Amino acid sequence: MKKIGILGASGSVGMQGLDIIRQHTDQYQLVSFSVGRNIEQAKEIIKEFSPKIVSVQNAADAEKLTEFDVEVVDGDEGLLAVAGYKENDMLLNSILGSVGLRPTLHAIEQGIDIALANKETLVVAGELVMQKAKEHGVNILPVDSEHSAIYQCLNGEDPQTIEKIIITASGGSFRDLSRAELEEVTLEDALNHPNWSMGQKITIDSATMMNKGLEVIEAKWLFDLPVEKIETILHRESVIHSMVEFNDTSVIAQLGTPDMRMPILYAFSYPERLPREGERLNLAKLGTMHFKEMDLERFKCLKFAYDAIKIGGTMPVVMNAVNEVAVAKFLNGEISFLDIERLIEREMRNHDVIQNPDLETILKVDADYKSRQYEV
Amino acid sequence: MKKIGILGASGSVGMQGLDIIRQHTDQYQLVSFSVGRNIEQAKEIIKEFSPKIVSVQNAADAEKLTEFDVEVVDGDEGLLAVAGYKENDMLLNSILGSVGLRPTLHAIEQGIDIALANKETLVVAGELVMQKAKEHGVNILPVDSEHSAIYQCLNGEDPQTIEKIIITASGGSFRDLSRAELEEVTLEDALNHPNWSMGQKITIDSATMMNKGLEVIEAKWLFDLPVEKIETILHRESVIHSMVEFNDTSVIAQLGTPDMRMPILYAFSYPERLPREGERLNLAKLGTMHFKEMDLERFKCLKFAYDAIKIGGTMPVVMNAVNEVAVAKFLNGEISFLDIERLIEREMRNHDVIQNPDLETILKVDADYKSRQYEV
Repeated sequence: MKKIGILGASGSVGMQGLDIIRQHTDQYQLVSFSVGRNIEQAKEIIKEFSPKIVSVQNAADAEKLTEFDVEVVDGDEGLLAVAGYKENDMLLNSILGSVGLRPTLHAIEQGIDIALANKETLVVAGELVMQKAKEHGVNILPVDSEHSAIYQCLNGEDPQTIEKIIITASGGSFRDLSRAELEEVTLEDALNHPNWSMGQKITIDSATMMNKGLEVIEAKWLFDLPVEKIETILHRESVIHSMVEFNDTSVIAQLGTPDMRMPILYAFSYPERLPREGERLNLAKLGTMHFKEMDLERFKCLKFAYDAIKIGGTMPVVMNAVNEVAVAKFLNGEISFLDIERLIEREMRNHDVIQNPDLETILKVDADYKSRQYEV
Repeated sequence: MKKIGILGASGSVGMQGLDIIRQHTDQYQLVSFSVGRNIEQAKEIIKEFSPKIVSVQNAADAEKLTEFDVEVVDGDEGLLAVAGYKENDMLLNSILGSVGLRPTLHAIEQGIDIALANKETLVVAGELVMQKAKEHGVNILPVDSEHSAIYQCLNGEDPQTIEKIIITASGGSFRDLSRAELEEVTLEDALNHPNWSMGQKITIDSATMMNKGLEVIEAKWLFDLPVEKIETILHRESVIHSMVEFNDTSVIAQLGTPDMRMPILYAFSYPERLPREGERLNLAKLGTMHFKEMDLERFKCLKFAYDAIKIGGTMPVVMNAVNEVAVAKFLNGEISFLDIERLIEREMRNHDVIQNPDLETILKVDADYKSRQYEV
C-alpha cells in the first residue's frame, strides 16, 4: 500500500489524483492533503478517504473541520506539515504557483518521492530541487503529459544515449494566425483551446507558447540535459505527447488520448503500470497526424524561455513572474494578447541577473516581480 | 568484444551486419560466417575480417578458399558448424528460407544468442524455437524494423501489462487499388514498393500483405502473446515501425527512417545502444502521417495468417510453403497476382493439420508442399 499526500486536492489535477486513489484502493491510500479555501470539498475528501492530516489556507477555515477525526493545520506552516507528513510515501504537488516550491523541498528533505504538477518548482528552482532530490535519493515523477511521455520513453534506457528530446506542442488557440492577426485577438478567442480543457492561465500560456517554454525549462532540469538537446515541434493533434531520439537514430514516442489521469497514475505506479479504464487511442479513427517546424519568431515566448535558461540564475524566475502578472492582466482585460510578450521581453532585458541564487533570493525576486506595477 | 557469426553474409542483411561490425571494430568481431555460392564475396570478407571459420554451399567452392588462413566447411553440416561455432557470442541468421531453421536451433543449443532475420525460423517452428531458447537461456533478438520496434517499446516494461501490440503496414505497392483492380496488375507494378528497397520475394509479400501475416505469426512467438493481442494498421509512411499499447492506455511507439542497420545494431548492442551515423527522422519535413484500419477482406493473405496461427500445428508451415512457391510462380510469369491468394487458400483448406509437430515433421511438410506441382 503506497501512502499518498496531495497538495491542492480540490484543484483539477488534485481531484484526478483522488480519482486514481479511488480506483485503486488496494494500492493507494490518501493520508494527507491540502486545499485552499474550498472547505466543502475538504469535508467530502475527509469523509471519503479518512486521511490523517489536512491543511487549509486560513486559520478561520480550520475550525470548520474540527468535527472530523483528522489533524487540521493551516497556512504556510500547515502546507509544510502536509508535504512532509511522516507517513507520505509520495507527495502529489498540484498546488498552483511559487507557493508550491517550499513544500516540494521540504518533502524531498523527508525522503518523500514527488509527483510533480507544480510547474514553478522546476522553472524557478530546478537546479536546487534536483540537487536536493539527488542528495536524498528521491524520485521526481512528472505529472503532465509531455514530461511523463519522456519519462516513459526513457524507461530502461541509458540517459547517456539520448541524442535529443522532442516536446510536442499543439500550437494553442492561435496556431494558424500570423503575428499581424495576433494584434486583434480577444480573450474569448484565446480561451478556446483546440485539444485540452484546462485552467485559464495554462490555456493562455498555451496560446503564447510560454507553456512550452516552461516545459523546456522543466525538461532541462528533470532530465539533466543541455538545452541544445531539447527541441519542440508543432503537432496539432497532440497525440504524440513527446519523443526521445537516441544516438543510434531510433526515436521512441509516447502516445495517448488527452487525459491527465494517465500521467498521474504513471507517477503513482512507476516503475510499474496499473490497469486503467479510459478512452483508448484509435489511430485509424484519427486518420492523420501533422507536424511542423517550430518558429521561434512567431512564438516569441518560447524563445524567451530558451534565452532565460541559457542565461540562467534568476532570469527564469523573472520570466515566469512577469508572465504570470501579464497573463492575469490579459485575463482581466487590461492589456492585449501581444502585450504579454512585450512586458516579458522588456522586463527580462532590464533584469540584472543574480547567478546561483539560493532559495531566499529566488523567492524574493519572484515576489518582487509579481508585486510590481507594470505599464505597457 | 562481442564475437559475431553471420549466416548469409553475402545477402542484403548479412552485408549490413558486416557494415555494423566494420563501424564498431572496438565492440564486434566477425569470427564465423556462411555464404551460398558467392565465393568472391567470401574472399573479400575473409581478407577484411579474418574470421576463424567459413561455410559455403558446395564442396567444390570450398576448395577455392584453401589459400586463406581460415577453416573452410561446406553444405548443411558446414552451416551447422558456423551456426554453433564455439566462439560465437551471437549469431546473425540472415539466411533465406527454411534451411535457416536447423542452424538456429543448433546455435540455441550451444547457448548462442540469436539476431534473427530468417523469418521461417519463427513462422514454421516458433513454438519449438522459443521453447528451446528458454531452456538454454538464449535471447532471440529480432532483425526487422517491426519486431525490433516492439522489442524497443517493451524495454523496461512488464510483459504482463501489454494490452496489445500494433504492427504497422505500409500497404505495399497496391495499397490504393481495389480487389477488382488487383486482377490486372503486372509483375512490374508489384515490384515497385513505395518505401523500402528490398528483395523481390519480400516486395511481393508486402503487396499481398503476406509479409505482415508472417510478422503477426513471428510476433506471437517472439512476444509470447495470444494472436488476439496482435493488431495491424495501415500507415503508408512506415515512419512508426510498430507500437505497444499498455493496460494503462499508454502507447509507446518506435519511429525511424527505413534502414535495416538500425535493428541489426540494436540486436547486436541490446540492452545497450551504440551511436550510429545515418539519416535521422525529421517529422517536420515529413509533415503528415496517415493511418487507416486494416481490411482483412481486401488483404486476404493477412487473414490467412491469422487463421493459420489460430489453427496452429502444421498450418503455418503449409501457408508459408505454398506462398513461397506461388510468389516464385508469379515472379516467373506463370500465374497472376491474385492467383497467389487463391493457391494458398485452396491448399490451406485441403491440408490435414498435424498438431504439435516435431522438427522432422515440420521440415517434411515444408519440403512436401514446396515440391508439389500446383495448377491454378
